[in-house]
Amino acid sequence: MHRYRSHTCGELRDTHAGETVRLSGWVNRVRDHGGLLFIDLRDHYGLTQIVADPDSPAFKTAETLRAEWCVRIDGVVKKRTPETVNANIPTGGVEVFAQEIEVLGAAKELPLPVFGEPDYPEDTRLKYRFLDLRRETLHANIVKRTRIIASMRRRMTEIGFSEYTTPILTASSPEGARDFLVPSRIHPGKFYALPQAPQQFKQLLMVAGFDRYFQIAPCFRDEDPRADRLPGEFYQLDLEMSFVTQEDVWDTMEPVIRGVFEEFADGKPVTQRFPRIPYDTAIRTYGSDKPDLRNPIEMQAVTGHFAGSGFKVFARMIEADPKAEIWAIPAKTGGSRAFCDRMNAWAQSQGQPGLGYIFWRAENGALEGAGPLAKNIGEDRTEAIRTQLGLAEGDAVFFVAGDPAKFYRFAGEARNRVGSELGLVDKDRFALCWIVDFPFYEWSEEEKKLDFAHNPFSMPQGGLEALENEDPLTIKAFQYDAVCNGYEIASGSIRNQKPETMVKAFELVGLSQADVEERFGGMYRAFQYGAPPHGGMAAGIDRVVMLLCGAENLREITLFPMNQQAQDLLMGAPSDPTPKQLRELHIRLNPPQ
Amino acid sequence: MHRYRSHTCGELRDTHAGETVRLSGWVNRVRDHGGLLFIDLRDHYGLTQIVADPDSPAFKTAETLRAEWCVRIDGVVKKRTPETVNANIPTGGVEVFAQEIEVLGAAKELPLPVFGEPDYPEDTRLKYRFLDLRRETLHANIVKRTRIIASMRRRMTEIGFSEYTTPILTASSPEGARDFLVPSRIHPGKFYALPQAPQQFKQLLMVAGFDRYFQIAPCFRDEDPRADRLPGEFYQLDLEMSFVTQEDVWDTMEPVIRGVFEEFADGKPVTQRFPRIPYDTAIRTYGSDKPDLRNPIEMQAVTGHFAGSGFKVFARMIEADPKAEIWAIPAKTGGSRAFCDRMNAWAQSQGQPGLGYIFWRAENGALEGAGPLAKNIGEDRTEAIRTQLGLAEGDAVFFVAGDPAKFYRFAGEARNRVGSELGLVDKDRFALCWIVDFPFYEWSEEEKKLDFAHNPFSMPQGGLEALENEDPLTIKAFQYDAVCNGYEIASGSIRNQKPETMVKAFELVGLSQADVEERFGGMYRAFQYGAPPHGGMAAGIDRVVMLLCGAENLREITLFPMNQQAQDLLMGAPSDPTPKQLRELHIRLNPPQ
Repeated sequence: MHRYRSHTCGELRDTHAGETVRLSGWVNRVRDHGGLLFIDLRDHYGLTQIVADPDSPAFKTAETLRAEWCVRIDGVVKKRTPETVNANIPTGGVEVFAQEIEVLGAAKELPLPVFGEPDYPEDTRLKYRFLDLRRETLHANIVKRTRIIASMRRRMTEIGFSEYTTPILTASSPEGARDFLVPSRIHPGKFYALPQAPQQFKQLLMVAGFDRYFQIAPCFRDEDPRADRLPGEFYQLDLEMSFVTQEDVWDTMEPVIRGVFEEFADGKPVTQRFPRIPYDTAIRTYGSDKPDLRNPIEMQAVTGHFAGSGFKVFARMIEADPKAEIWAIPAKTGGSRAFCDRMNAWAQSQGQPGLGYIFWRAENGALEGAGPLAKNIGEDRTEAIRTQLGLAEGDAVFFVAGDPAKFYRFAGEARNRVGSELGLVDKDRFALCWIVDFPFYEWSEEEKKLDFAHNPFSMPQGGLEALENEDPLTIKAFQYDAVCNGYEIASGSIRNQKPETMVKAFELVGLSQADVEERFGGMYRAFQYGAPPHGGMAAGIDRVVMLLCGAENLREITLFPMNQQAQDLLMGAPSDPTPKQLRELHIRLNPPQ
Repeated sequence: MHRYRSHTCGELRDTHAGETVRLSGWVNRVRDHGGLLFIDLRDHYGLTQIVADPDSPAFKTAETLRAEWCVRIDGVVKKRTPETVNANIPTGGVEVFAQEIEVLGAAKELPLPVFGEPDYPEDTRLKYRFLDLRRETLHANIVKRTRIIASMRRRMTEIGFSEYTTPILTASSPEGARDFLVPSRIHPGKFYALPQAPQQFKQLLMVAGFDRYFQIAPCFRDEDPRADRLPGEFYQLDLEMSFVTQEDVWDTMEPVIRGVFEEFADGKPVTQRFPRIPYDTAIRTYGSDKPDLRNPIEMQAVTGHFAGSGFKVFARMIEADPKAEIWAIPAKTGGSRAFCDRMNAWAQSQGQPGLGYIFWRAENGALEGAGPLAKNIGEDRTEAIRTQLGLAEGDAVFFVAGDPAKFYRFAGEARNRVGSELGLVDKDRFALCWIVDFPFYEWSEEEKKLDFAHNPFSMPQGGLEALENEDPLTIKAFQYDAVCNGYEIASGSIRNQKPETMVKAFELVGLSQADVEERFGGMYRAFQYGAPPHGGMAAGIDRVVMLLCGAENLREITLFPMNQQAQDLLMGAPSDPTPKQLRELHIRLNPPQ
């Protein structure tokens, strides 16, 4: 028999009855039933019930066992009686009568209970992560995470992508977030940087003639801790393709994303054909470029119905400002004064003046639009609004007014609020879409200049000609996001691989050719030597895993995370360097005063 | 038709004749055959011959094309005439008559030619790596590398391993090599370290109850540049298993290693059942713990034949020193004075006094052992040596004498030399073996104390009892290497997971329990809470890829390597930090005086 086990703890069935087996695992818990000891033995694969009766030679050892001891147990498999079968676990039809027990690793008193997963302070969980990871939910999340990533890899490989690993010790790139730096020992005063993303390397790979790149890529950003971001490192499914249009990228990746979601959705429905929603439409319809499409509410502009109407606040606004619009947030089943007032109060709590509304009720057998606005604009306009929005008795509508660029975010939040308060959001599905045609530039109010709205390496739609002839703020980029349930899960673009277009694009945000050469030298140089058209995207693995695990916190899907203070409490990082290390690295500490 | 291509450059065959196709790729070269232009168009998948004749509307553009321009070409596929078929490439039966050519990316004058792969200074190749990577051999090596790693992943997954990624920003670990450090911005004066290997994390994973871990793991060591090691980062196939003996690890990994080699060996034979050679045997037989088993020479001790013999140098040595031994290096087909003298001269060039030998020749129809040693020890002893070694006419034997601990390395080199000089080494195969039973401790002459011979985390054979009762220098570890063609390709062990055994093992090298707690706190603490028996190994991916690509230099199998001065010439790393960065990281430069 094998030194440690003949079977795993998830393997035994009725058919093994009568066999002498050997199991190894952890004591999940011990119960004493009138002298008879029941030990739930747990390993990576499952749980098996062990019975030690006082006549067994193993009983003496069994009595000493405590939770989370690691043990080997030899015994005989017996079928359970029908009334003691545990239908909740695959091994629930049998139990093993212990004949010999060997303690492989005893445990001191536990700083953190495993069985039952009671709430515990996060710092204790992180310091004793090796115990925390034995807990059922976290263990299952981590296993699911590894399976999701393996599935991504398999799917990418099946459609002709190869995984190339790009350097981790590389150059500082002055775009985007803050770099982690690594002092060079060999070159005093010089530093490597950890990559914020393999963006430049993957584009260089395309210039080097590799056609379909992907990587489960570690990325590093030295950002201040935030609830939705772990300090330090995170992983992307990063990919790039040559000789493609943006439609090719969508057509290639949509089956991969859909496939991964379907594989791990536990039967929840997943969008089959992702709608491709232009950025401008998304903003106008959902008030967000990350719309939660599980929420059926679609906003519409109803400006015309208020122009010249008796509701003077809106009417004057429309008259005074050509940019002014009135957006309607239809709220099916929201047609009660109580609900409308609650929404109004919520809007005020968000710093808004309020949230105008109309709701429809039956009054003396006739449909009536109720509320102050309805009164002000009169029956015909109220009815026109109802018809446009397809609302009925028992429904309501809320209005947001002003310059859409300023209010759309709030409108989106109000849409979310209405949807969730009214229970319109179908939580048990994964609603995916592409958001496309992002603006290339945006106006920076602080700097009073143009800035890149997203990725400076994206190709502007219309190319060099558009950059030279069009209002920059109207130029769209070949830039797109994949969105699921209100979260951005991936982002990508067709890249700007033409040196002169790249220089022009940067010129418009105030950077010279020399700046481009200095900051993105490797890539800019490469584009001079036969660069192919190319594009790609990067998907945030942590976010996808969180969605599929139904987890709310990144630490519930990460193996050895740091805490919110960017400390690894298990390994004790960061820690003090030795004077020798500092000397070798040619640096001195410069503590804050 | 697709914007960029209907087919790849490796796809067209006779059966496509008559079709109008669209290809995109790079101009590999242009030849002018009496007005007719032949363009070899290359992409990731292959090469297709394009023909532009002066009547074609594409001719004018075709004339402007230069090597490495990226172009799209529309044209009609035609079968080549039998005499112009190129049997060397899969598309060699057809050519495409160009009708339209679009330049997608022109190229400036090339700093580095691609076609023909002429030798070029390494720094130019690294600075223009995106061109270098287009070269046929390097491109193929990188593709092979990605396929080898994908195969490793697939094989590991198929046998029940899951890939877990472990942190890259972690704690400094004071064992082994020098760490790369990363200053913490949030914790002034503290530093993270990049992992030299995920050793502690993978062991923690086992303690956390994950059963079969693997990872294609980036590892970081800040070592001085060496020919056989790239500065910075390298990759390991890292794995760990719970509830296993060392035989389980070998039985699990041998099919994976053999499978990978067979898949990529291009038909060269691969060892089917890896011999398991104890370390002591390897040293005595091959003079190395990394024996090249393609070399059939096996050394033997022949001490007895020289004891009390007429060859006084050896005889006195044996008498004076009980440790003294004489090892014989049999050299089939080496039986000429010229060869023996050449070996003797080589030994002297290595700082040795010489290399005694006997060779056998036919003299007057009888077999005669020739050379000074044979004369000194006489016919009987010479014949006894010949019989023991199974040598015959035309063969030779060389002798190395003294304390084996001091001469075994040289003996191993002499064995290599004899094997390669005589052409005994079959270069066209992969000879694999396990080296097992490594010593646990070694004696450090400098420090005059015991030291760990290899991994301090290995389990000593005999456990705590052996540590307490046996001569430490005789204790073996459950520690093993996999070796191929004279290179260590993997190393592993069964780990010491018992806290008291760990403390005792460190005590013998002079480290207290407090030291252990301070240096390996995370792991030592974990072992107190139900640690399972576990073991594993790590295989050097770069070495495996080099062997399978037949490459001699790590830069020939690495995508974006640094140069020997630890600089990334393409991206410009390491580079100067900004004063703001230094301030944020609470460090100051401290340049050498």
